[in-house]
Order: sequence, then structure tokens, then C-alpha cells
Amino acid sequence: MQLGIIGLGRMGGNIARRLMLNGHETVVFDRNVDFVSTLAAEGAQGVADLQALVAGLQAPRAVWVMLPAGAPTEDTIEALSQLLEAGDVIIDGGNTYYKDDIRRARSLAEKGLKYIDVGTSGGVWGLERGYCMMIGGDADEVLRLDPLFAALAPGYGDIPRTRDRVAEDDRAERGYIHAGPAGSGHFVKMIHNGIEYGMMQAFAEGFDILKTKASENLPEDQRFDLNVADIAEVWRRGSVVSSWLLDLTADALASDPKLDGYSGSVADSGEGRWTIEAAMEQSVPVPVLSNSLFARFRSRQQSTYGDKLLSAMRFGFGGHVETSKK
Amino acid sequence: MQLGIIGLGRMGGNIARRLMLNGHETVVFDRNVDFVSTLAAEGAQGVADLQALVAGLQAPRAVWVMLPAGAPTEDTIEALSQLLEAGDVIIDGGNTYYKDDIRRARSLAEKGLKYIDVGTSGGVWGLERGYCMMIGGDADEVLRLDPLFAALAPGYGDIPRTRDRVAEDDRAERGYIHAGPAGSGHFVKMIHNGIEYGMMQAFAEGFDILKTKASENLPEDQRFDLNVADIAEVWRRGSVVSSWLLDLTADALASDPKLDGYSGSVADSGEGRWTIEAAMEQSVPVPVLSNSLFARFRSRQQSTYGDKLLSAMRFGFGGHVETSKK
Amino acid sequence: MQLGIIGLGRMGGNIARRLMLNGHETVVFDRNVDFVSTLAAEGAQGVADLQALVAGLQAPRAVWVMLPAGAPTEDTIEALSQLLEAGDVIIDGGNTYYKDDIRRARSLAEKGLKYIDVGTSGGVWGLERGYCMMIGGDADEVLRLDPLFAALAPGYGDIPRTRDRVAEDDRAERGYIHAGPAGSGHFVKMIHNGIEYGMMQAFAEGFDILKTKASENLPEDQRFDLNVADIAEVWRRGSVVSSWLLDLTADALASDPKLDGYSGSVADSGEGRWTIEAAMEQSVPVPVLSNSLFARFRSRQQSTYGDKLLSAMRFGFGGHVETSKK
Amino acid sequence: MQLGIIGLGRMGGNIARRLMLNGHETVVFDRNVDFVSTLAAEGAQGVADLQALVAGLQAPRAVWVMLPAGAPTEDTIEALSQLLEAGDVIIDGGNTYYKDDIRRARSLAEKGLKYIDVGTSGGVWGLERGYCMMIGGDADEVLRLDPLFAALAPGYGDIPRTRDRVAEDDRAERGYIHAGPAGSGHFVKMIHNGIEYGMMQAFAEGFDILKTKASENLPEDQRFDLNVADIAEVWRRGSVVSSWLLDLTADALASDPKLDGYSGSVADSGEGRWTIEAAMEQSVPVPVLSNSLFARFRSRQQSTYGDKLLSAMRFGFGGHVETSKK
Repeated sequence: MQLGIIGLGRMGGNIARRLMLNGHETVVFDRNVDFVSTLAAEGAQGVADLQALVAGLQAPRAVWVMLPAGAPTEDTIEALSQLLEAGDVIIDGGNTYYKDDIRRARSLAEKGLKYIDVGTSGGVWGLERGYCMMIGGDADEVLRLDPLFAALAPGYGDIPRTRDRVAEDDRAERGYIHAGPAGSGHFVKMIHNGIEYGMMQAFAEGFDILKTKASENLPEDQRFDLNVADIAEVWRRGSVVSSWLLDLTADALASDPKLDGYSGSVADSGEGRWTIEAAMEQSVPVPVLSNSLFARFRSRQQSTYGDKLLSAMRFGFGGHVETSKK
Repeated sequence: MQLGIIGLGRMGGNIARRLMLNGHETVVFDRNVDFVSTLAAEGAQGVADLQALVAGLQAPRAVWVMLPAGAPTEDTIEALSQLLEAGDVIIDGGNTYYKDDIRRARSLAEKGLKYIDVGTSGGVWGLERGYCMMIGGDADEVLRLDPLFAALAPGYGDIPRTRDRVAEDDRAERGYIHAGPAGSGHFVKMIHNGIEYGMMQAFAEGFDILKTKASENLPEDQRFDLNVADIAEVWRRGSVVSSWLLDLTADALASDPKLDGYSGSVADSGEGRWTIEAAMEQSVPVPVLSNSLFARFRSRQQSTYGDKLLSAMRFGFGGHVETSKK
Repeated sequence: MQLGIIGLGRMGGNIARRLMLNGHETVVFDRNVDFVSTLAAEGAQGVADLQALVAGLQAPRAVWVMLPAGAPTEDTIEALSQLLEAGDVIIDGGNTYYKDDIRRARSLAEKGLKYIDVGTSGGVWGLERGYCMMIGGDADEVLRLDPLFAALAPGYGDIPRTRDRVAEDDRAERGYIHAGPAGSGHFVKMIHNGIEYGMMQAFAEGFDILKTKASENLPEDQRFDLNVADIAEVWRRGSVVSSWLLDLTADALASDPKLDGYSGSVADSGEGRWTIEAAMEQSVPVPVLSNSLFARFRSRQQSTYGDKLLSAMRFGFGGHVETSKK
Repeated sequence: MQLGIIGLGRMGGNIARRLMLNGHETVVFDRNVDFVSTLAAEGAQGVADLQALVAGLQAPRAVWVMLPAGAPTEDTIEALSQLLEAGDVIIDGGNTYYKDDIRRARSLAEKGLKYIDVGTSGGVWGLERGYCMMIGGDADEVLRLDPLFAALAPGYGDIPRTRDRVAEDDRAERGYIHAGPAGSGHFVKMIHNGIEYGMMQAFAEGFDILKTKASENLPEDQRFDLNVADIAEVWRRGSVVSSWLLDLTADALASDPKLDGYSGSVADSGEGRWTIEAAMEQSVPVPVLSNSLFARFRSRQQSTYGDKLLSAMRFGFGGHVETSKK
């Protein structure tokens, strides 16, 4: 099958590669011409602009946009919508807010264009492991594009079957689902990331206690000289917390147990915030997901105005003067 | 009435003063001889050691220990217990863990000594406003000492009566209660401080949003140039959040709206932690009280090992490199 | 001065009354004709529709809309904008989302109409105590309407002056502020309510521990038979947590210490959620404000799907079967 | 090698079985004689009391206690300590509080007895998958017993090696570690369970949002008819949240997507609470771990006293009457 791909960064480039490895044809574009020529050298049809990309595809065309959410994606889809013709489909594989998907799908439908949103998980490992995809949009169109999704997905692999699973639709077991109408793909991916934040923070807090327990600041009779790399390693085998994130933790701690290579300033993308918004809209209590997000906010500041206000109040009622004692 | 007082710091010294202002006699001791001579100059009987303190009191003696919780208080009470005689009473006015009170009361009872724990709120303002006291111990003994408690307490003042209040015991309205047996005074005070942490953190977070909303880092069309000192001031009048902590906030912001005088490294005493322990013992969910405590822990660190682990995992699965962007 | 008031419920009715008590003239409307006639009997000019209200006011007219946020307010302002003329001002005294204020102010300005948003705190007590007001909009227009705001506000009262306060603008000390341009009034009120949620939850958690400590489910040697009404009462005097919310708590516990009259299903209005959204927009960590909101969400459910999933996982890895044991 | 095992429940019985499968000899005891005879039929030497168990082992004896933490374990170890002789070792494989381990190790050492604490993860799956073990105690003694630990552990399996891992000690890769001195094994296991709570709660909250998004209570245009079983399934393949807990979630949702078989009353064992205590001792902020625990507390109550107090305050300041509206 043929797919146009716009945006050849870490994700888009490997998506093109994995499709080509599986016998599909790609027409690729990026503002960075080096990215285009690299992929052209690997067999893709590189093009110099959107017009050429559209021209290089047979109708009904499918164009995968793999760009940062927000303006870059929005502008590109707007531009594409001027170039494509009725029956063509735009696939947004990025991290778009699901309400933007719903809006776009409606707007593009007026021009006879189709819109599919794909929440794509897999990061830098997707080329090798395959991409886990959560797809929103028209069911028939998703089926029409199935060869592409099947090629990108991890497939059954050697993962044990889920006990009691009886389902007509085996796509989930091959690593992708049709979640529902436009927006639902990114909605499910958004929640995925929300959970991811929570799991990461659970590990972060637990390892923080372990590391602190080994701290030389503790009196010797309260200290355990724990080997955090070994702990991560052993939990990978037979423990309840075994997980891919733990595998990555073990990787990181094997080479840098003190994590001196990191400052601890942790970014967050939109999904964590949108997850909290969705929870609030639906009145679902999410203390863990929200505190995981807030821990990231806090990690990026040295001290907060709020902390200073606490100090000011303590001075006010008790004459407490700040000390540097931990 | 006559009271021995050990520990003449911010709290103990003013307790002596307020008692003397109300016509009571005090025999006072502190390791710091300057503190003793200052109070002696104000009318107290200053003494040089515990023996002299005990000798200066008529039986049945009452000795108020106003020292930091933990070893200073524990050691002093142990020493006192060797010097006092059956029928005497030791009053711990500090921030002792209530389980230590229970243990001590039992142990002192074996020697015929009485023990009373007093959770004392009022900080540096107590001399003027009076001390709010939560008292644990034998009911009769608490009654016997009532003249002292009544003198230390704020009294009715001009605070409006609570609607529908019908109670035989009017001590609560005069600012002190007999909470129950030994330990209950400090238990109630401990919860008071837990709530205090939560209220303070609520203000801290709210004012942090207000201050950040006025930040020059925000695009101009998203910014409000808010006057936080005026906001604290206006809320003191007729708003739902009016409170003494808000009064103190208004004080602080009136003189230093940016709070540049504070680093934001916020200490915590034992009560916040013990409150969480009590909640866990009783299976009571306390997300706000615990997060208030954790915010203080966090305020005293520049970055945590946990934060670094988050960065390491993000690099592991997505190749995300830390940036300093907030 | 003359003011039109639309919406004569708990808030709007008393606003009219307090203005009339201070010598102002009101022209009032409500869909509920009984509300109108009640106020007419107290001296207001009651009218039957918006047209009559506008006709009853001299230009430049000022109309205070005191309706539920969302559609009721939105529709009324839209209708008013058709009836008013350039130079008139619409005041939204409800709990509108501040971004709606910004939008409306822009849109009304195109017609030459002015828009002022007033965050109003004071609840059922406002008639007597006065209303604490946070006002957004054009500074000159806010000044022009000052006689109205001054009448509604609590005034200096007998509240002690804030130490070190030096400010040209004494309105804050009289209970109202001009916070900034359109939207800023409701923004400040929104944060006020966010803080209010946090303070309330701090009290809720603390009293929950106190009450549980007195529970007959606890072994006798771990129990304190605490009097929660007395505890609330005593904290009103000289303690750090003294506050209006504590006064209300003391009121409630004086008449119903077990709170049997309440089911514990706690509603939330928009401000709590919007506060979290604002915090997320500004990357401010707000664990206490958010957990206070989530506690309310949780209070309205008997059990959550999430809780069931926890049980399912526990059964999955450990064979743990649910029991009813607390 | 030879091992005595006391406690033949879900864990102890399978530990005996896995050891026998690997050629070791077991002498087994349980108060429930049926458990003993069942294992005897599978090749263990069943005994009727502790004396017989000790008599059935050659010195230096090793006895594994696999009982509920607290009194059952404590009393058994006390009894054993009377029967064993210098050089023998007691292994506590349960979920004991690590400070109890430290105390016991000291006390037993006075009698020449050794003590090893083993945090054991693996639940009902351990027989098949092997047990992940975190071991505290004397290094030499742990080495002496290595054949037993090696047999119980999962072994290398087909789990990919951790990148960059260079370690002399390959036990971690075979599923067990010597964490340090007495108590450290249970300390590490305790943190493991703390993390487990956090990860579980992250999934619980995420799936709660997904399920609620599919709720018929939502207006149709805000609803997605999501298939939660498919979502869990697809995330098992290539997504960042893939984990054993997700596998179990997929199992549970495959057979009961609405989770109607569960009430959602979620128990907690000591480790979650002790993790918070450890964090507080070390001043480590743990919002996610603590909120996970509190969610469990909350799951076991229909409404809290705290919730009722919120309602009472809302009625107090705003006249808000509780409604059942969600």
C-alpha cells in the first residue's frame, strides 16, 4: 500500500522505515531536507513540498502527519486540506488533543475528506518492537488502511495470550485497536500517557526512598547500603511491579546508579494535563495522575512562591526563622 | 497559685509573664541564666537548678515543662520524677507525641506522681491573646489547676457565641478544654497542627497561582497584574477564607509582596507526621494533610533522586533529553 | 445611585436589600414573580421583564446580573446587550469563568457597552456582614460605580489593621478591590474558592481523625472519647486555625456533633475545577487544591470502577478475595 | 538441601512444592493438618508440631516461617527460638515490618541463632514463575542457603538482559538479591509493595476515566463507546505501560469488563503504610504512594465524617443543601 508521511523525526522516520520493511511504499516530506534525503536513500520517495507529496500519491490518498501537536500539525492539516480531494484521508499520528480531532473531522468532512487520529506509543523503540496504536475515525476507512496498521503494529509476538479472552476482533492482540469515532484514538492514548505518568512517579518515589535509605546523611544504624541497580534488576523477575518502565529503570541504573547524568528537571507534554481535564469533566477522582503531573511541575522550580508564603506564615505566628536544615 | 516553669524560651517565658500578670506566682528555671534573670527582674522567683525549683514550691507542687519535644523534655521529666514527691504534678506543655504521654503517665503514676499534657497554641502572640490549650490527664487534677489554665487562656473575649451551643462545661468558650485522659491533649493539638499545615498549603497554592498569573513569563494577553497584598487584605473582610492565617498572610504581603525575604525552605515539626501516622492507624484518608507535609519535604530539596529517575526513564523510552524550559 | 438587578435568589435579593438600606435605588427583575413582589414590598421598583428594567433606569444604566453561571447568565447578557445603549454597563456578579468574561467584554465593547465582573463572596451572610468583592473591568467605570460597591462591602468594621500596610487604595480595607481588567475579578474569586476547598478539606480530614479516634470500633485502650464540638469551640480562641470556616464548624457540631443530618454527598461548582485548570496552564503544582476537589468527586460515589479494578488485580496476582473488613 | 517450612498456605505450600521439584527435602508443619497431609502426599515430610519439625532436621537447621506478619509470625519465632540450637537459622519469608526483623536478629543472635528476612514476591504464580526474593541477613549465611534461594527464584528465564549491566553478583538476574543486613530484605520488599500500590492506582484511575467516558450518563456527543478489554489488550503490546499488572488487568477485563464481580472494597496490608512511614522518617515526598493508600481506605467506606463536615460547612456559609446530583 502507499502512504504519504509528513514529519520525519524520531517517530515519522521510523514509521516510514517499518512500513518499507514490510513492503509498503512511502512518499515522504520534512522541512529538513536532510531527513528527506536520508529516507530517500533507504527507498522512500522523497518530495520537496506538500504539492509534490499529494501529486506522488494515487487516489484515494492517505497522508500520515507526524508532527508536534498544536500549530505545526494544525497548519499542515489545513494546508493539506486545500490540496487533497474528496475521498482522501488525513491521518494524525501525533499527540493531538482529542477535541481538536473532533473539530477537524467535522470540518474536513465538509470537504469530503476523511480524518483518522492515531495515538501512537512506542517511542524510539517502535521500529524494532512495533508501534502500539489506538485509532479513531470511520470504521470502514480504518479497515481500508488495515495493511498499514498491521505492518506498523508489533503483532502477536511471543506475549502470552490473555486468559479468557474471547473477541471477534483480533487487532488488539496484534497491537492496534479501532477505539471509536474521530478523537477516540487520541483520547485513549491520552489516558495511556496519564497512567504512564502515574507509574513513573510510583517508581520515582519508591526509588527515592531506597536511595535516601542508603544516604550518608542518615545515622549509620538507620542506614541500609542498598544497591538500587540490583533492586531494579531483581524486580524484573517474578515481581508484581515488573514492567517495561522497570526494564528502562534497570537500564538507567546499571550505567549510572546515582543518576548524576540528570538534573531532574522533568518536562511534561499535553496529555498529562488533558487527562486531568477529562477526569474533571467526568468527575473522576484522580489523585495519583494529578500528583504525578504536579511532581513534574515542581521538579522544574528551585523554590515556589507558595513555599515562601509558608515560611512567611510560620514566621508570622511562631517567629520561626528558616534554616537550611533538611 | 504557684507554678514551677522549666524552659523560658519564646513560649515558656511568656507563659510565666501571663501568669504573673494574672496574680500567680512562678518559680522559673532555664539552662540559659540570662533567661532566668530577665524573668526574675519581672517578678518571678529565678532558680539555678531543678533541686532549687522543687524546693521553691509548696506541695502539692505543679511544674510546667516547656521544652522541645524528645530528649530535652524526656530527660527533664525523668530528672524531675526523682525530685518530686507523691501528689505532685508534672505538666508537659510542649509538642510531645501523645503515645509518649501515655507511657509517661503510667510510669509516673507508679511513683504517685501526676502527669498532664497540654497542647498549647498561640505562638509568639500568646502573651497578648492568651493560649488556646488542649489538656489531657486526670479530670480532678485538671480542675485543681484550673486557676492557672483560666489565666493562660484567652477567655471569652469579643468572639461571637456559637449558635445553638449548649454545654455544661464553658471552658471551651474560655479557650481551654479537658480533652480526656493522658495523651488526649497532645493528640488534639497534633490534629490541630495537621489541619494548620493543610490550611497553610491551601493558601500557599492559591497565592502561587495568583502570583504566577502576574508573572512576566506569561504572554501579556494571558497575564493579570494582580496585587497580592490587596487580595489578601480584601479577603479578610466577609470572605469565606477569612482566618488568622490570612491575617498573617496579609501582614507578610503588606511589607514584602514578592516574599523576597524568604528562601522557601519550610521546616516541619513532628505533629504533621504524627497526624499522618494516626490517620493510617485509623484508616482515615488524608490526602490534603499528607500532601501539605510532602510539600514541605519537597521545599527543602533542590531536586530529588525521584525526579532524576523520571528523566532517566523518559530518555529511555522516548529519547527525551532534559531541557531547562519550564 | 440607581442599579438594575436581575436574579433575586439568595444572593441577588440581599444585594438589593443591602443597597436599599444604604439609600440606593433598585429596579429588580426575576422570572419568579414572587421574588419580585417581595422586594417591591421592601421598596424596590419591581419590573416584569428586561425591557421594563432597562426602561426604568436612567442612562448611563448599570445592570447587575446575579444568576447561575453558564447559560442563564450568558443568555441574559446577550438579551440585555440588545436592549441597552452605548455607555451602559453590565455587571456580572455570579460565578462566571473568567475567560468568558474576557470574551464578553470584547464583544460588548464593540457595541459601546461596558462589562464588569464581580466575584462576590459572602453567601447567606452578606446582607448582614457585607459582601467581599473582587472586581474586574475598566478602572474608571469601576470608580464611577464606587458608591454601589462601597455600600455592598463590609467596610472597615472592627477588624484590626494589617501591620505595615501602606497603600494608596483603601478599598481593600473596606472589603472590595479593583483587581484589574475584565476577567480578573472572577479570576481572583475563582482562586478564593479553590483555597476555600482546600481549607474545608483540611478541617474535614482533621475532624475525621478526631471522630474516628473516638469510634467504638477502636480497642478501648486506643480510643479517646473526644468531644468534637468542644474542640471546634476551643480552637476558635487563640489557635492558629481560627477562621470563619471553623466558626461554622463549631456551629454545625454544636447542634449535631455526629453530623447525622448530612449524607456527605458534596457538590462542587465550577471554580474548583477552573482553579486546577489555571494551575495547569501556569505549571503551578496544586496537590492540596486538587485533592480537595477529588475528595468531593469521591464523596458522591459509593464505589468506583477504579476501586473494582484494584480488587480485580489483587485477585489476579495474589488470589486475594474482597472482604468487608475495614 | 533440607528446609523446614512452617505455614503451608498459598505461599508456604507452593514454596515447599517448588523446592521439592528442584530436588530439595522439606519438613513441613501447619496448624491445619489437611495442609500437612496434602504436602506429605506430594513428598514432604509432614510433622505434627514444632518439636517434631526441629527433630526432623539435621543441624545446622534452616526453618522457613511463612505466616501472616504480626503475632502469628512473632509467636512462632519465639517458640522456635526455644527449640533450635546455636548455628541454626530462622528465615522469615512473610511480610514482617523491617524494624521487627532488626530487633529479632539482635535478640536471636544472643542465643547463637541466625535470622534471615526474605521479602517474597510472586503470589499465587510463584510455583510456576518462581519467587522474586529480597534477602536480608548475614552474607555468609545467605550464601550457605544459596541452593534453596536459587531453586525458588525464577532464574534467568527468557527476559532480555539489561543493557550496560556489569555486576559481579549475578543473583539479581536470577531473581534474588542479598540486600544487606537483617531487615533490609523486608525493607526492599516493603518499598516494592508501595510502588505496586502506586502502579495499581494509576491503572485504576486511568481505566476509571475510560469507563466513565463510555457511561450512558454522559450526553451522547461527549461519549465514546470504548472497549476497555481491548484497550488493556492493545497496551500489552509495545506501549510504555506494558507490565504484569496490565496483563492481569487484561485478564480481568476479558472475562468481566464491567467488573461486576467486585464490590470495590480494597484491603491493604502493612507494607503500604510502612512505606509512608519510612518516607516520613527520611523526609521523602511521596504523594503518589500515599494517595494510593488513601484511595484504598476510602474504598472501604460509604461516606466519611469528613464528607459530612464539608456538607455542614457548605450549608453554613451558603445555605447549600445536599443533593444527590453527581
